[in-house]
Amino acid sequence: MSKAVFFHAGCPVCVSAEQNLANAIDPKRYQIESVHLGEDKSRIEEARAAGVKSVPALVLDGSAYHINFGAALSDLG
Amino acid sequence: MSKAVFFHAGCPVCVSAEQNLANAIDPKRYQIESVHLGEDKSRIEEARAAGVKSVPALVLDGSAYHINFGAALSDLG
Repeated sequence: MSKAVFFHAGCPVCVSAEQNLANAIDPKRYQIESVHLGEDKSRIEEARAAGVKSVPALVLDGSAYHINFGAALSDLG
Repeated sequence: MSKAVFFHAGCPVCVSAEQNLANAIDPKRYQIESVHLGEDKSRIEEARAAGVKSVPALVLDGSAYHINFGAALSDLG
């Protein structure tokens, strides 16, 4: 089982990406976690280390995939 | 069964996104099609109509999700 972490900040672009793209991920192969960086700022460094520069972003197997653009990570921390 | 169309242009960013993110989509719920816009320019207008501005992009249920940035759609057509 691979790990998928969806980083977001509650923005409209983030909500759309979560409801559609993140929810489309195969739950049989991926354990999906959703992290709201605006509410859980302790995870910002983890996101940055994974290469996340903006939200919403999905980190799959250690690679960061930015999905459209909601907010810059630097504006959250 | 919903439809998911992955638009790409064979670029390194596109290949990574296809191998990881597009392949992570649940095949039980989505019928996934991969379209190489550099080789199939007849589909560029369809991508543009769905809101795609750059590749790689995934169109899910009619909504366009740009994944990182490989190339602008305007550079392909």
